[in-house]
This record gives sequence, structure tokens and C-alpha cells, in this order.
Amino acid sequence: MTAFSEADHHWMSRAIALAGKGQFTTSPNPAVGCVILDSDGNLAGEGYHRQAGGPHAEVFALRQAGDRARGGTAYVTLEPCSHHGRTPPCAEALIEAGIKRVIAAGTDPNPKVSGKGLALLQNAGIAAEHGLLETDAEALNRGFMTRMRTGKPFVTLKLAASLDGKTALENGHSQWVTSEAARLDVQRHRASACAILTGSGTVLIDNPSLNVRLTANALGLEDDLGVRQPLRVIVDSRNQMQPDLTLFTLPGEILLANKKPNHWRFDSNVSQWQCHHKTPRVHLPALLNELGQRGVNHLWVESGAALAGALLQQHLVDELMLYQAPKLMGDKAKGLCLMPSLSHMNEALSLSWSDIRQVGEDLRLTARVLPQNQKK
Amino acid sequence: MTAFSEADHHWMSRAIALAGKGQFTTSPNPAVGCVILDSDGNLAGEGYHRQAGGPHAEVFALRQAGDRARGGTAYVTLEPCSHHGRTPPCAEALIEAGIKRVIAAGTDPNPKVSGKGLALLQNAGIAAEHGLLETDAEALNRGFMTRMRTGKPFVTLKLAASLDGKTALENGHSQWVTSEAARLDVQRHRASACAILTGSGTVLIDNPSLNVRLTANALGLEDDLGVRQPLRVIVDSRNQMQPDLTLFTLPGEILLANKKPNHWRFDSNVSQWQCHHKTPRVHLPALLNELGQRGVNHLWVESGAALAGALLQQHLVDELMLYQAPKLMGDKAKGLCLMPSLSHMNEALSLSWSDIRQVGEDLRLTARVLPQNQKK
Repeated sequence: MTAFSEADHHWMSRAIALAGKGQFTTSPNPAVGCVILDSDGNLAGEGYHRQAGGPHAEVFALRQAGDRARGGTAYVTLEPCSHHGRTPPCAEALIEAGIKRVIAAGTDPNPKVSGKGLALLQNAGIAAEHGLLETDAEALNRGFMTRMRTGKPFVTLKLAASLDGKTALENGHSQWVTSEAARLDVQRHRASACAILTGSGTVLIDNPSLNVRLTANALGLEDDLGVRQPLRVIVDSRNQMQPDLTLFTLPGEILLANKKPNHWRFDSNVSQWQCHHKTPRVHLPALLNELGQRGVNHLWVESGAALAGALLQQHLVDELMLYQAPKLMGDKAKGLCLMPSLSHMNEALSLSWSDIRQVGEDLRLTARVLPQNQKK
Repeated sequence: MTAFSEADHHWMSRAIALAGKGQFTTSPNPAVGCVILDSDGNLAGEGYHRQAGGPHAEVFALRQAGDRARGGTAYVTLEPCSHHGRTPPCAEALIEAGIKRVIAAGTDPNPKVSGKGLALLQNAGIAAEHGLLETDAEALNRGFMTRMRTGKPFVTLKLAASLDGKTALENGHSQWVTSEAARLDVQRHRASACAILTGSGTVLIDNPSLNVRLTANALGLEDDLGVRQPLRVIVDSRNQMQPDLTLFTLPGEILLANKKPNHWRFDSNVSQWQCHHKTPRVHLPALLNELGQRGVNHLWVESGAALAGALLQQHLVDELMLYQAPKLMGDKAKGLCLMPSLSHMNEALSLSWSDIRQVGEDLRLTARVLPQNQKK
């Protein structure tokens, strides 16, 4: 294990902060940042990946550094690519620029290509290392990392409830359980997700938009970047969706996941995917695989209690994000997740806190869902 | 408003810390601390009230200060008493000791006597002031303050649930929803309460002890002080309690609140109170008044969903303390509080956070219940 210096930590932190600037726009690519120092250790260039199809972070940083890159050091939050994709390989660009040392936070998560970028650099006589602030760099791209490793998106289930776990009154009223600040926070999470998943039941009851209503300015995007609308995915096993529902009238792609084609005439932004599993409803693991293949890194779920319960029970949820309002709604109100009756306490789904904070007047509790075998 | 010095704040803080040492033993009296400085401003004596019937804080501090109290200053967390109770009035003792300045955090909460102790001191030529760190001093005695002002105890409803607001499985299993650390924390709260309230339904289902199992040492009590068992109050409208239940076999007083006398032969630690309101069940406001008259400052409620819901609905709960386990138990499990169905979201009970913290692996959420007219 290489011992990294204090300066190394400083510059990699800066590269990670740069990477974060791409969090709302790089999908399906990862967010990557790059810092280049000249041979004297002074900042020569920096950049971040903005959009899939556009230049990688290293290219922006090398452009800015120009000749000062020669003999310099590059900090990259992800192993530089070694393959010809939509852009030429960054490892080659770093070699050509005369960089002498490359530090990557982590290696490429794809086992088939992992290490090849660093090897290319090393073969060119460059001191190429990795493992600096790797956890922090990965946290920005856990969706991408999960998809590369498992083929499925990282799944966050968002729920909003009162302190007694209720999401709506008996009569269905749910506007609003949580505060405006919490709903604004949800907008930011939607904006950073690649896709938003819900069920047709929720669409029929709430007639939601499920889109991002924040402006590019509110998201802190650079002037020439627009707001990316995440793919809206509706599980519609019984073909209950019709084109006049609000979400179909708004810009952005929509995917209907169903068992048989829905023959209503939808606009061209609506596509369909049929699940051919011999299950009465859409087979959720198959849907997640399909979304993975479509480049969905991070799936944000805003669903009712039925789909939430099904995802949880099938262990398809990586993270729960619960907005909790300081209210009590009573036992007649509607609950958070439908699950079969348990006979022992150790059958309860176990979670592990990752973040607790107040958002407006509500609490936001974030927790990882523990795999069955990691129960306490 | 007097301007208090930095030194004043320092010594009053110390007096408040001293007062806190009495939190497990002074009931039904308030916890009070006292610091005495000599005429040069050096610490001469300090003390706190330990037990009802025993000396007040001022007496301990004056004993320790001896002759050094002459010309000195006294910091007391509550206005010195002016009446002859079980002990002589502290205001007189301070006068006799030759104290020249007395600073009280706040005045006596009882409107009938409030200000009389300070007046007695002022009439004797002592500079007597109040209003220093009053909120902090009051926080220690909010039960006593509430009882003095309203005749009723301060009521904390303790609940323990999963993230989806469930307290037990459909089959009744509830051991354990929360962690050992949370249950230990509950023990400390029981120990500082004057009484613990529950319903006969919970006693029949769980057969609990409802006692304090912490040692005097664990509570940080002085060597000669024993653990005080809070009064256990059981709402038993239908006389379902029988002497062989666990709680009746353990030391400590028990009060059965019922509609008609329960004719089982209970031990002498069990007393009964009949509610004569023309209600089918025990009238809860009347019970709280009765407990207030019996000197219960702080009532700690550990009940099932029915009594919890009834207390909440009747606006008899001052504070909710919810231990929340990082678990999901599903909709078939049992809920937190039974309440009638609401027709509008603004009928939900509103709360206001006062403390959020992690206790072991659980969260502990403390919130004040907002009066109906303070709703957001």
C-alpha cells in the first residue's frame, strides 16, 4: 500500500468535489473529477465529466493545463479509461501530455476492464497508483458501481410518513404529510437519479408528475447544461395506464413495465417493456436487470405500500430514505409497506443507519437495508 | 432586568448541576441546588436537595460554608422557601447566616407563594434577584412546575416501534423491538419519574414489572440513598387485575385506578382509587388530577396503543418519547396508537422536536405535543 502525502489527500479531495458537480448530468456515466499539477506541484488544470458523450474529466483538466502538464501529476477520482468509447482513451491522453504520476481514487468497477487503464500508464513508465479516498469517491457513484458489479441499479426507496408510520389518511388524503422543505429535498434526489420507479396504483390515486421541477440554476448546473429528466418507470402489470394521466403529458422519457403491450396511443416519449416471466405481475428482479441494461445506475423509488413492500421483501432495496413528519395520524391511516405477517421478531427487515438529519420540520432517516444473513 | 456577570453564570450553572444530582430521589419535591461564595467570591459551600423531608439545598450549602457565608453570595436554582414546611424556611436561614446577595434562577412556580421568599430576603436588606439561567433550571423540574401550575403531572408518553410504526407482531410478539441500550435508557427515565402509568391490557399481555431495576450505583446516587421505586398506576376500568401478576409481587407502591373496588386481596403496597365520573372507563383527566394531588410531578406512560391513543386524543400528553428501531415489520404488525379515522390532514396531532439522538442502535425521538391551537 502506497503512503499518500497530505498534499495528495488535498488534491484528491478537490478532484472529488469537482466530480460532484456532474452528479445531475453524467448519467449513465459516472461522475468523475480530475486535477492536474505541474512539475512543481502547483495547480495547472482541473475538470469534471459533464455529460455522457462529452469529454471525460481528464480531457478538460489536460486542456486547461496545456504544456504545464508535462512532468506533472494527475489526480483522478476513477481509473482513467483504456478503451476507445465515444471518446479516445484518457490513459493515452495522459501519456501523450507527459504526465509523470497518476493517482486514481479507485479502479474501474467493471471487473473486465479494472486495472487496464493503470497498467497502460505503468507500461508507459508512469507512476500509477490507486486507493486514495476511494470510499469518498465511490460514494458519488454508488449507482454506477452497483450496476457495473451486479448489472442492477442501486435502489433507494423513498418513503414519507408520520411518526406512527402512516402515509395517508383512511380516505386517501396525503397532501401533505411532510413539509415543503422535505418535498424540495426529494426534488434534488429525483434530479440525481437516473430513473424514478412507481406503480400504476400510485399513479391512479395521486396522478403525480414524477418529474424534476428544479431549475438548472437551483441545481447549480453550468449555464449551458440543462436539467436532465430521469426516466420514469411505471410498473403496470394490468395495463391501467392511459395517455391522459398527468405524467404522460410532461417532457421526459417514460417506460411502462407490463405483461402485455398496452394498446393506448402514447406519445413517442413513452416506451414499453414486457416481462415474460410466468408471474401474474411484473417480475421485479427482471425489471431491475432490464433497467441496468438500459444504463440506469441509481433507481429512486417513490411508490405506494404495495410496491414498497414487494421490493423490500424480495431484498431489492439497497437503501431506505424515510422522511418523517412530527405528526401522529392514528391506526386507521394507511401504512408504509405491505408485507406478510411475521411469526418471529427476527424475521423483521433489519436496517443500518447511514444518515439522520432534519430537513425543514421533518426528519430524514437514511438507512441501508441489511442482507438477510447480516442480521443482528 | 439585572445584568448578571460571567461569574454569576458560572456559579448558577454549578448550582444547576448540583440540583441534577437529586433527580432520582427528591420526588415529590423539586430538585434544587445551591452554591455559596464567601465575601471574596470564593466557593464556600454547596449542596443539593436529596429527599423530601430532608434538608433543602441551602441548608447543606450553609452548613458547609459555616462562618464563611457571612457577607457572601448564594446561588439557588429555585426561589428559597418562606414557609414552615417539614423544614424551617430557607430564606430565614440565609438571613441568619449573614448572606448579602441571593440569586435565584426562577421564582417559586406556585402562584400563591411565588416571590414571597425573595421579598422576605429583600425586606432583610439582602440584594435578592432572579432570572438567571431560569430555563435550564426549570428543565430539571418541569414535572414539579407543571403540577404547581396546573395541578396535573407533566406527562411523557414513551413508545417503542419499528420505522414503520409497529410495536408488536400480529401474534403479539414484541420482545424485542428495540435494543438493550434503549431499554436501559428507559430504566433511567422510569427512575426519574414519580409514577409510571399503564393499562390493564398491557399488564395482561406482557405481564411487566414496571419497576426500576438499575442499582443506586448505576444511577450515581450517594452511598446512603436507595433507589426510589416510582408509583405504578394501572388503569383498570374493568377490574382485570389479580394479585398473582408479576408487578404485584415486586416492592413498590401500586395504585389501581378503577370504576368500582377490586375485591381481590392485594398486599398492602396496593391501593385503589375509584373514578366516579359517568364514563364507562376511568376518566383520564380526573386520574391526572388525582395523581397531581398525590404529588406526582412527572408521569411516565408505558402503555399499549389504546391508552396511548386515548391520552393523545384527549390532549393529555405533554411529550412523546419514541424509541425507533432500524427495522420494518410490515402492515400486519400492531400500530402505535389507536385513534379515530381523520378526514383532513390538519386533524393529525402535531409535534415539535425537542431532541433527536441515537441510543445504541435505535433512535430516540423526543417531541412536545403541540396544543390544538398551535398547529402549523
